Amino acid sequence: MPKWLTMDAPESDVVVSTRMRLARNLADVPFPACLRGRDDIEKVHEGARQSILKSSAFEYMRLGETDTLKKRALAERHIISPELARRRDGALIVNEDESISVMILEEDHYRLQTLSAGLTPDKAYGEVDLLDKMLADGVEYAFDEQLGFLTSCPTNAGTGLRASVMLHLPGLAATKGMPRVSAMVAKVGMTVRGAFGEGTAAAGALYQISNQVTLGVSEQEILDRLTTTAKTVIEFERGTRTELAKSLGVALEDRVWRAVGLLKNARRMGGAEAQRLISDVALGLSLGIAGGLSSSEMYKLMMDTRPAIIAEMHGKLSPSQRDVKRAEMIRDVLTQRCTG
Amino acid sequence: MPKWLTMDAPESDVVVSTRMRLARNLADVPFPACLRGRDDIEKVHEGARQSILKSSAFEYMRLGETDTLKKRALAERHIISPELARRRDGALIVNEDESISVMILEEDHYRLQTLSAGLTPDKAYGEVDLLDKMLADGVEYAFDEQLGFLTSCPTNAGTGLRASVMLHLPGLAATKGMPRVSAMVAKVGMTVRGAFGEGTAAAGALYQISNQVTLGVSEQEILDRLTTTAKTVIEFERGTRTELAKSLGVALEDRVWRAVGLLKNARRMGGAEAQRLISDVALGLSLGIAGGLSSSEMYKLMMDTRPAIIAEMHGKLSPSQRDVKRAEMIRDVLTQRCTG
Repeated sequence: MPKWLTMDAPESDVVVSTRMRLARNLADVPFPACLRGRDDIEKVHEGARQSILKSSAFEYMRLGETDTLKKRALAERHIISPELARRRDGALIVNEDESISVMILEEDHYRLQTLSAGLTPDKAYGEVDLLDKMLADGVEYAFDEQLGFLTSCPTNAGTGLRASVMLHLPGLAATKGMPRVSAMVAKVGMTVRGAFGEGTAAAGALYQISNQVTLGVSEQEILDRLTTTAKTVIEFERGTRTELAKSLGVALEDRVWRAVGLLKNARRMGGAEAQRLISDVALGLSLGIAGGLSSSEMYKLMMDTRPAIIAEMHGKLSPSQRDVKRAEMIRDVLTQRCTG
Repeated sequence: MPKWLTMDAPESDVVVSTRMRLARNLADVPFPACLRGRDDIEKVHEGARQSILKSSAFEYMRLGETDTLKKRALAERHIISPELARRRDGALIVNEDESISVMILEEDHYRLQTLSAGLTPDKAYGEVDLLDKMLADGVEYAFDEQLGFLTSCPTNAGTGLRASVMLHLPGLAATKGMPRVSAMVAKVGMTVRGAFGEGTAAAGALYQISNQVTLGVSEQEILDRLTTTAKTVIEFERGTRTELAKSLGVALEDRVWRAVGLLKNARRMGGAEAQRLISDVALGLSLGIAGGLSSSEMYKLMMDTRPAIIAEMHGKLSPSQRDVKRAEMIRDVLTQRCTG
C-alpha cells in the first residue's frame, strides 16, 4: 500500500522511513485559527493549486467532499492529521504514491510533507525543498528577517522544519532501553515517541524521533543532528538485538518462528497482536532467523493491516470481519513469500 | 512409536484405542503381596515363559535388569504399571509392537493385556483370550467354581477382565459435557477418567472408559456394555463437535489453524502445550478443518511426545533440551504431511 516504502532502503533493518515537514503561511492572510473570510480561504487553496497542480503528478482533494473511510486511511498513513480530516474547508494535494503532499488549512496554511523509505534525510529534504520552491514561486510567504518563517504555533517558527525518522526498535523495547534513548535524544534537542502517538509503540515497537527545535538553527544543522542521532540509535538497537540473540538463543528463535506460524495460519487477528507478531518476524529476519521476506515488507504489512487502511481497501467491516480480513491479508503475504 | 496404533481404525475420529486386561493367578502360589520364596517367584516366571515364549513373537524382560529410561517409556505407553516398574522381581513379556503383553508379579501373578486401535473390542478380546488359553495350557490358575478367577484385590475377581477404550473428547471437554458422561457411564457400572490418571485429561482431552464390575457378569456382557457405552459417548462427542463448529465458526477454525501454525513452527514446546495443540488439530481434522493428516497420527504424536518416550528415543535430556526435541519431532511430522 504505501508504495514509497521500497525494499532495500538504507538501514532498513532498523529504519522504516524518513519524513520531512515544512510549515508555511501566506503573508497577507490570517492564520487558519482566525481565518473566516471565504475569499481568504479560497486564496490559500488557489495559491497551492496554481503552484503545484501545474504538475500532473498531483491530485487535489477537498476534505469536506472526501469519503470518511478514505480520510481515516490517509490519517493512518500519516498523510493527513486527524485535525485536518475534521476540517470541512481543508484540502490535500498529494502525488500518486503519497510520498509528497501538502495539507492545506491545517494548523498552518500549508504543511508540506515528503516521505521516503529507510534513513534518507537528504532525499526527503531535497524533495520537500523542491516542493517549497514550487509553492514559493506562486505565493508570498509570511517571513520575517529576524524570525524566519512565521507559523501559527511559535514552536514551528524559523525553519518551519520538522525532520523525523520512524524506527523499529524491538531490541531496545524488549530490554527496557527506551528510557536511555529518550534521555540521549533529548540532549540534542530531539524527542522520541510511539509512531502512532504517545504510548502507542508497545505492540509493534515502532518509534519516531524528530527535532524539537526549529528556530535558531539551520535546516542543514537539523538534518545533520537527525542523522547522527538516528545512527547512534541504530547501532544501539543492532547491538541489543545481537545480545538478545546470544542471551535468549532458542527462546528467541522460538518466538520468531511461532510468530511466523501464527501469521501464516490464524483465521482472525486483532490489530495489536498483528503488530506484535509482525514485529517479531522483522526482528527475526534481521538476525537471520526465518527468511524469504524483507524488513520493509514487514513494515508495509504493519501499516496495511491498520483498521482504516483495511476498510479503505475492503469497505466498511465490523471489527470481527476486519480481524478475519486482516488475518487473510497477512496469510497472503506470508504464504507467498515466507520459508518455514 | 506405538505401531499397533494403525490408521483408519473403526471410529478413530473419537476412539484412540481399545484395551483388554485379564488378571490371573497361579493356584498353588501366594499372591504377590505375600510372595517371598525364591522358588515360588521363579515358578510364576517359568509358568509364563514356558507357555508364551514358545512363540518367537515374544520377548521376556526382567524389570530389575531393565534400563530406567526404557521402563519409564513402557509405563507412559501403558505397557507396564509404575508399580511393576519399581518391582525388582517383576518381568514383562511383550510382542514386537507392544500390542500383546503380560506383566508378571504386578498386583497379580499375571496381568494379560492387549491393545488395538479404534473401537475394536472383539479383536482386542479375541487376542487376550488367545493369550489366556496359551498361558492356561501350561499352568494351573487359581479358580473357584462360585467366584471365578481369584485375584489379589476382590474387585478384580470373577472374570478378571478390565475392558476399556481411550477416547478423544475435545468437544465434550470444551463444553463441560464430561460430568454428564461420568453420570451416564456410572449407571451401567462403568467409569471414566483422564487417560493418564485422575485429572490428567485437561491438556489433550483424552479419557478412558472402563468397566468397574468384573464379578457376576460374563465377559460378553462386559464387552457389550463397553461397546454400547462407547458408541453413546461417540455420538454425543460428534454432535457436540458439530455444534461447536456451528456456534464458534471462524473462532474454531482460527484455533485449529493457529495450533497447526505453532506445531509446524515452534522451536521448543512443553508437554502440556503439545497435548493441547495436537488435540486441537485432531478436532479440526474430524471437522474437515485442515487436512493431510489423520486423527490416528495425531494420537500417535500425543503419545510419542510424552517425556519418557522422548528420552527412550533420544537419550537422557534436560527438560529444556526435551522441549526443543519435542518441537523438532512435531515439526517433522507436520511439515511432511500437513497442508497449511
